[in-house]
Amino acid sequence: MASNGVEEPLLSGMVDPSVQTKKKNFLKRRYRHSKSAPLAEFFPSETKGTGQIPHTESITGKLHPTFKQVAIFLAVYLGVGAVTFLLVRNQIEGKKTDGFLDAVYFCIVTMTTVGYGDLVPDSTLTKLLACAFVFTGMALIGLILSKAADYLVEKQEILLVKALHMSHKVSTTEILKEVETNKVRYKCLTVFILLLVLIIIGTIFLATVEKLDLVDAFYCVCATITTLGYGDKSFSTEVGRAFAVIWILTSTITLAQFFLYFAELNTERRQRALANWVRTRKMTSVDLEAADIDDDGFVDASDFIIYKLKEMGKISQEDISLLLEEFKDLDVDQSGTLSVSDITLAQS
Amino acid sequence: MASNGVEEPLLSGMVDPSVQTKKKNFLKRRYRHSKSAPLAEFFPSETKGTGQIPHTESITGKLHPTFKQVAIFLAVYLGVGAVTFLLVRNQIEGKKTDGFLDAVYFCIVTMTTVGYGDLVPDSTLTKLLACAFVFTGMALIGLILSKAADYLVEKQEILLVKALHMSHKVSTTEILKEVETNKVRYKCLTVFILLLVLIIIGTIFLATVEKLDLVDAFYCVCATITTLGYGDKSFSTEVGRAFAVIWILTSTITLAQFFLYFAELNTERRQRALANWVRTRKMTSVDLEAADIDDDGFVDASDFIIYKLKEMGKISQEDISLLLEEFKDLDVDQSGTLSVSDITLAQS
Repeated sequence: MASNGVEEPLLSGMVDPSVQTKKKNFLKRRYRHSKSAPLAEFFPSETKGTGQIPHTESITGKLHPTFKQVAIFLAVYLGVGAVTFLLVRNQIEGKKTDGFLDAVYFCIVTMTTVGYGDLVPDSTLTKLLACAFVFTGMALIGLILSKAADYLVEKQEILLVKALHMSHKVSTTEILKEVETNKVRYKCLTVFILLLVLIIIGTIFLATVEKLDLVDAFYCVCATITTLGYGDKSFSTEVGRAFAVIWILTSTITLAQFFLYFAELNTERRQRALANWVRTRKMTSVDLEAADIDDDGFVDASDFIIYKLKEMGKISQEDISLLLEEFKDLDVDQSGTLSVSDITLAQS
Repeated sequence: MASNGVEEPLLSGMVDPSVQTKKKNFLKRRYRHSKSAPLAEFFPSETKGTGQIPHTESITGKLHPTFKQVAIFLAVYLGVGAVTFLLVRNQIEGKKTDGFLDAVYFCIVTMTTVGYGDLVPDSTLTKLLACAFVFTGMALIGLILSKAADYLVEKQEILLVKALHMSHKVSTTEILKEVETNKVRYKCLTVFILLLVLIIIGTIFLATVEKLDLVDAFYCVCATITTLGYGDKSFSTEVGRAFAVIWILTSTITLAQFFLYFAELNTERRQRALANWVRTRKMTSVDLEAADIDDDGFVDASDFIIYKLKEMGKISQEDISLLLEEFKDLDVDQSGTLSVSDITLAQS
């Protein structure tokens, strides 16, 4: 088994964010830090939108659906959902407004698992349809969460930092650096502010358009964004439901996002503590012996780095073993080091 | 910024599983693969429950709450919730059975965000209490998801593999190896089977005790485990609610778990593809130059491994830079390699 999966944190890959995020960061990082230019061309389609290297292109395409693909999934899902529930609208019970709007609204309330119950399926067919739509909807929400996330937040972060530093003038470079250094913190803050805005908008809307008193409006907002959806208060007017379609989707995803970023912040803090502890731990002679990964009799900088990365749990022995084999295949003259002639010979 | 956080997949740290899981795997791995025994003692409290090394102990304690702590959180949450809603039971409207049972049931329906709406808060106080309980409940569910997970599934996996191989006799060692190799796949399968069992139990229960017809029972089960909770069908008898308290909590968490493992499976597959591609990619002379991380003029096995791990996005330039500095501090005689005298001198 490739070690990566096992080494991954438990909730790492909800739908598939891991590879994508990792790769994105890795790319960004490359451009900035690496002394090797060619690496930066690894996934050209991601940064430049063009694909000079066909092979790389196909790898990228296979590895993760793009943001655009997710948007198309959502559109198709809502389209199919709306048409389906429009066709069976007589088998759905509850407070109705416009047929099409109700169908979309029902679809959104179902896929986000808010489930107010102000519209409920009333036949075997619609009940089973609702079951099918809630499962696929959940999967889709997971996919949206994994994609929309960083993509949408990144630009807002910069605006946020600009706003925070409005009083003292700072250059764009400084802002970018600040954002990079405290990335997760700013992501968290950005999403939190967005969430507050959505809560306020929702409360005001419910109070004015749906004529709820302020506590009820706030209560309905909380019950909605958490997907609790008791259903004693919900959107019952046509305008209300049109608003709800957009607002419910945005706010439930934003809250989920906030929880995730908050958790990431926590994880980061812990990982940093662990890494620091490992880095500064005293070496013993036993460590020294163990660190000589290539058994060449001495511990150079690279040996030391690999040993410490292993200690931090960032890489596994399996990662190392596989690459060590690869190295041995390349090292044709068995000198223990790679030269241009080695790789020319090995790859010819 | 420590690079780890950024390199982490998007959804990696829901509450804080990452460090914990990583460390657990890393530990297990160590025992099996590492040639260095001392490393295995890194987090003694996790494997042996004893703490010979006080410093290590405190690091572990700070890094993650234990499974037991999470169980205590849940008990406290449900206790406080039950008492609170018992005290304000006259301000809650709906179909009631036993006062205490209803309070616990309401608490569970709220924290899992199922929100049937068969019991709804009916005063400003109870509405605001419900808001507070749903947010804290969600955070707690996240925490449970991050802890209960591997802990509970691991033993069942082995039983599952045993059952699957019942016809041909295989040794325990072979089973353990099989489980290890296809870890995520078996976790996924185990949780899926558990989910099926919970769905069947729930459907039978609703059909017999709550007297729903089969389609309605299945529909109510689906609406519950997805936390949709329209509320047109729910648990209305005393026995039903007692069952619901356990069943709702278990089944919603199991479904969430299934989604997460499924996603992990996906992530693993993609990461493996990426790692394979990087590993077998042809080296060029430019690569060779870039791979000489310690600038000592040649690329040995460790240099090659670090270069490839960087390409895979498993480690970042920042990880390397920090450790390189640490190495230079230790390498007192500046020979480019570490010796026992180096570390004795550096650490004295």
